[in-house]
Amino acid sequence: MELTSKASTDAAPPQTRGDLSRERLVAMAMEAFAAKGFHGCTTRDIALAADMSPAAMYVHYQSKEELLFLISREGHEATLRQVREGLASASDPVAQLTAMVRGFVHDHAEGHVRARVTNFELANLSPEHYRVVMAMRREVEETFCAVVEAGVRSGVFSTDDVRMTVRALLSLGIDTARWFRDGGRSSAGEVAEHYVGLALRMVGV
Amino acid sequence: MELTSKASTDAAPPQTRGDLSRERLVAMAMEAFAAKGFHGCTTRDIALAADMSPAAMYVHYQSKEELLFLISREGHEATLRQVREGLASASDPVAQLTAMVRGFVHDHAEGHVRARVTNFELANLSPEHYRVVMAMRREVEETFCAVVEAGVRSGVFSTDDVRMTVRALLSLGIDTARWFRDGGRSSAGEVAEHYVGLALRMVGV
Repeated sequence: MELTSKASTDAAPPQTRGDLSRERLVAMAMEAFAAKGFHGCTTRDIALAADMSPAAMYVHYQSKEELLFLISREGHEATLRQVREGLASASDPVAQLTAMVRGFVHDHAEGHVRARVTNFELANLSPEHYRVVMAMRREVEETFCAVVEAGVRSGVFSTDDVRMTVRALLSLGIDTARWFRDGGRSSAGEVAEHYVGLALRMVGV
Repeated sequence: MELTSKASTDAAPPQTRGDLSRERLVAMAMEAFAAKGFHGCTTRDIALAADMSPAAMYVHYQSKEELLFLISREGHEATLRQVREGLASASDPVAQLTAMVRGFVHDHAEGHVRARVTNFELANLSPEHYRVVMAMRREVEETFCAVVEAGVRSGVFSTDDVRMTVRALLSLGIDTARWFRDGGRSSAGEVAEHYVGLALRMVGV
């Protein structure tokens, strides 16, 4: 019923059974990779967690690596989209960096399960898939560098090594995915707000 | 010859063949865990890399987890020793934090192989070994918190959340182990010096 009414308003195609199976497999793979690491679980584990036989799983995905790449690509696409939006949301570097750090940290905290897979399992991608993901990571880093450089030029930021400072800013978000747990001392939003303050101090505001 | 002369000067017991075998196994396990993850390599891989049969390896270590614990415990002991030394090296919080961050970042960069294992494989320790390691991690965090709190009290530091700021300071070092590579753009010492500057800004100096 809900699917039909959605389809009639925005013309999105209804989800097929195959779509739902694929979604479930990706979700189960993400949980398994985050909990046990890519090599810590088998395709069989993932299939069974999704209530499927390994043979049924191979109809949808050819390998564990294909699942890892899908998760990794989606995660990086989401990050890249958000960084671009942060950049476009303002014209001054302070507001741009604020939006970019807020989004980056928030998503690495709230989406810590996916972020652990996307950041800590890169070495298990095929060389071809690794290149695709690294191109997105480079664009994220270059966008942060461009904003910090613009701030230094206009005199609102100061740092004697833009790239190393950006590396540190990104570390704040990435490492959050390692330690953040739901229901812990601080919410994703609280961590993001505190880290925005730290980030602005790091660039000398 | 060197072993004998060393033994005659400082009375350290000479290394036995068993000591050398154990050292080699730990070194090979560390490389393997860092490169492929704990679940990505077998005890057989580790034994063969150390020019030993799996059976000969079991004379020295009962399991892969025992090797992981040894590496993890040594790594955390070294970090804890260094943090305590940094604390003892001065009496004012700025100098203490400077020494602690410099040592912490430097060792996570220079010792990035070991640091990846000690920080990213915690979930693969047995519950008992996990508790031992976590007690050391807590002492590291508490020591940083004590220094930042002392600085806030004396008015040289400012932060509205000591613990979250310390979490971020530690992230700078821990995440360095993820991205740092030998022969890259910056040396471990250069990263450590730059990060000391960022850390002092983060606490409002």
